Amino acid sequence: MAQANPERVLRDLHTLRAMGAYRTGVHRPTLSAQDMEARRWLVAQLRETGAEASIDGIASVVSRAMGDGPKLLAGSHLESQNHAGWLDGALGVVYALEAARAVAEDAGLAGAGAGVDVIAFADEEGHFGHFHGSRSFTGALTEAEIDAARNRTDGRPLREALAEAGLAGLPRAQLEQGRHGAFLEAHIEQGDRLERAGLRVGVVTSIVAIWQYRITFEGAQNHAGTTSMAARRDAGAALTRFCQRIEARFPEVAGPHSVWTVGRITLDPGAPSIIPGRAEMLFQFRDADRAVLDRMRARLEALVAEANAEGRCPATLETLGQSEPAVMHPRARGALEAAAERVAPGAWMALPSGAGHDAQYMAPLMPTGMLFTPSIGGVSHHWTEDTAEQDIALGAQVFVAAADALLRG
Amino acid sequence: MAQANPERVLRDLHTLRAMGAYRTGVHRPTLSAQDMEARRWLVAQLRETGAEASIDGIASVVSRAMGDGPKLLAGSHLESQNHAGWLDGALGVVYALEAARAVAEDAGLAGAGAGVDVIAFADEEGHFGHFHGSRSFTGALTEAEIDAARNRTDGRPLREALAEAGLAGLPRAQLEQGRHGAFLEAHIEQGDRLERAGLRVGVVTSIVAIWQYRITFEGAQNHAGTTSMAARRDAGAALTRFCQRIEARFPEVAGPHSVWTVGRITLDPGAPSIIPGRAEMLFQFRDADRAVLDRMRARLEALVAEANAEGRCPATLETLGQSEPAVMHPRARGALEAAAERVAPGAWMALPSGAGHDAQYMAPLMPTGMLFTPSIGGVSHHWTEDTAEQDIALGAQVFVAAADALLRG
Repeated sequence: MAQANPERVLRDLHTLRAMGAYRTGVHRPTLSAQDMEARRWLVAQLRETGAEASIDGIASVVSRAMGDGPKLLAGSHLESQNHAGWLDGALGVVYALEAARAVAEDAGLAGAGAGVDVIAFADEEGHFGHFHGSRSFTGALTEAEIDAARNRTDGRPLREALAEAGLAGLPRAQLEQGRHGAFLEAHIEQGDRLERAGLRVGVVTSIVAIWQYRITFEGAQNHAGTTSMAARRDAGAALTRFCQRIEARFPEVAGPHSVWTVGRITLDPGAPSIIPGRAEMLFQFRDADRAVLDRMRARLEALVAEANAEGRCPATLETLGQSEPAVMHPRARGALEAAAERVAPGAWMALPSGAGHDAQYMAPLMPTGMLFTPSIGGVSHHWTEDTAEQDIALGAQVFVAAADALLRG
Repeated sequence: MAQANPERVLRDLHTLRAMGAYRTGVHRPTLSAQDMEARRWLVAQLRETGAEASIDGIASVVSRAMGDGPKLLAGSHLESQNHAGWLDGALGVVYALEAARAVAEDAGLAGAGAGVDVIAFADEEGHFGHFHGSRSFTGALTEAEIDAARNRTDGRPLREALAEAGLAGLPRAQLEQGRHGAFLEAHIEQGDRLERAGLRVGVVTSIVAIWQYRITFEGAQNHAGTTSMAARRDAGAALTRFCQRIEARFPEVAGPHSVWTVGRITLDPGAPSIIPGRAEMLFQFRDADRAVLDRMRARLEALVAEANAEGRCPATLETLGQSEPAVMHPRARGALEAAAERVAPGAWMALPSGAGHDAQYMAPLMPTGMLFTPSIGGVSHHWTEDTAEQDIALGAQVFVAAADALLRG
C-alpha cells in the first residue's frame, strides 16, 4: 500500500518556505522570481517520479504520470498572498507530490500502471485575476481575459509578467476528459473549527459560494466648511448608514454558517475637507446553501431599495460574481473519511469550506474531495498562519491513503 | 476717490482662467507650470502699478508699493484645488491687484504716498502642506517643515518642486510689523447663504476654527470566508458603527452653524476577501464659537470611550489640528460694511466663513477683514464653481471702496 513519508513532506515544505521567506511565512506573489523558483523546483521533483512535467502558458505546473492504469489528479497552488502563510497552497501541492511519489514507489500500483497527475494551479490567490489556473485547465479562461489582466498591486499586465517569466507563447494545459478517477486537494483550513473541536483532520463536505457586489452611493461633492449639514448630500455618510443596515438586518436571513464582509470602502475624493461626492464599498457573503444565498441576495436588494427610498444619495448595486456552492463527491469524500478514520481515529470531522479553492472548478467535472489540516488560532492570509508539524504529517498520511484507495477503486 | 474698473477685473480673471483651464474651471496645482505662469503674470501686473514685486522662496507673490504714506495689505492665493473653480483664490488676488491699481491711479492717495501691497500666498490649497504662504510670511514656517513637505497627490518633495520652478535658495518674504493699517481678503463664499438670502455681497464676521482628528480601530485581519461572524474582530465594522454614533449624537452638542465631516475612510488591507484588521477615518468639525468646539471635542472623546467600552476593536483618537476661530476686526469689517451699504445698499449681509483662509493668519497681527461674493448653487472645490459676472464687478467696487476708506483713515 502506498504510504506517505512525513519527513520528506516536511523537508519539501521547508524548502518551499525558503523561497520568498517573510518572517515565519512567505511573500511569493504570482510570477515573482520566488514564485517561478518554486514552480521550477516542483517540475524537477515531479520529473524524479518518472512523470512528464512542465510549466504551461498560464504558469500552472502540470505533470502526467506514465502507465496505462488508473489515474488521479491532485494538487493546489504555489503562489501566496502578499506577506502571508507558508502552507496556504504549498501544503496541498506537496501532499499531491508525495502521493505521486508514494504511488510510483508502490510496486503493486506502479505495476498496474496507476499514477497521480499533479497540478499546481496558477494564481489561485488572484494577483492577476480570478482562478486563472483552474479556469485555464478547464477551458473557461479566454485569451482576451489574459490580454486584459493586470496585477492588482502594481497594475502590471499579465502578458508582460508571463513574458518575463519565459512563458509567453507556451500552450496552456487542458484537462483530458475521462483520464482521472478523482481530484483531491489538501489545504490548511483557514478557520478555527478543527482547533476549537480539538481535532487534527478535516474532510470537506462542500465549498461555499461567494457572492460579491459593489455598492455605490452618489452624493454631491462640496466644501466641508461651507456646506450646512442640512444642505449636504454626503455619499460617505450614506454608505456608513447602509453598513449599519446590513449589520442590523442580515442576521435575520443568514444561515448558521453564513458570513458577510465589507472588505473595502472608498470615499471620493477622500480629502479631509471635502464632502464625499461618491462612495463605494465591496461587499460579499458566503454560504454552502443556495436557498440561504438567495435569501441574502434578496435582503441586500431590499436594503438598497430602502436606502434609495429614504436617502438623498442614490445607491446602485452591481453584481461582481455569484459562484455556485460545490458539493464534494461521495466517493472522494468517502475515501478521505475512511482514510481519516483509519489513520486518525476519532480525531477528524466533516466540515464545509468557507474559502474558495481550485477544487470548486474540478467538482463539476470529476469526483472531487478535499482534506483540511488545522489552522493554529484560525489564522489565515497572514504570515503567522501555521499547522503543527505532527498534524502536517498526519494529514499527509490520510491524503496518500485516500489516493491509494481511490486508485484501487 | 479710488474706483474699481470692473472690465479690467473681469478681463484679468478670464486671463487667469486660461492658465490651466479645465472645462469651465481650472486645474492649477501649486508649482505646476500653469501655477507658475499665473504667478509670473501677477508679478508683471504689479510692476505696472509702479510697485516692487517678485516671487519669493516659498512661491508667494509679494509686492511693495512706493511712497511713505499709509499702506494696506491685500491678497489671497493663485493655485487651485485639482480640477476646481476659476474664482477660488484668483478672485481675491485680482481684487487686491485692482485696489493697488485704483489707489495708484488716484491722484490724492498716490500723492499722499498711500498704497496697497499685494500678496498671493503660496499653497493655501495645501498641495504640499498647511497654509505655507501665510505661515511663511508671518514667520511660523520652518525650514525643517519645508524639507519634509511632499505633494499630497504624487509624493514629490516640495524642495524639488521649488527648485524646478527656479525658486530654490530665494529669500522668503516676511511681514514688516507696523507697515500695514489693515489686511483685506476677498473670496468666493463657497457656500449658499448669500444665494439663499438673495444677496450679492457678504462681509465676514469670523473665520471658523477647524478641529481635525484621525480615529483608528484595531481589529484582527483574517479570512472573510473561514472566520465565523462571532469570532470576528472587524475593524471596518467597528468604524462604520462609530460613524453612526457621530451621526446620532453630534447634533445634541453642535451649534446652529456647526459642520462635521468624515472625509476619508481606509480599511486595511482593503481586499474583498479579507476582514479588515485596521481601519482609519479622518474626521473634522468646524465652528466659530470656542465653547461649541469644546463641547464637540468632549462628545467625540466620549464616543471613543463608549466604543472602547462596548467593542472588540480598540479605538484611538489622534488630534491632527485644532485652530482658533479668527474674529474679524471692527475697523476692517466696518469699512467693508460701510462700502457694501453704499455700493450695494440692502444687497449685503454679515456672515461667518465656514472655510479657512489666509486671513486667519493675518488677523492676530493686524486689523483684518474679508469680503465674499456669492457661490452659484453653493458649489465649491469643483470646476462648476462660479459667481455671476455682475456680482464679481459689484464685489470689486465694494472692495476698492473699503480700501480707499481704510487708507484715508
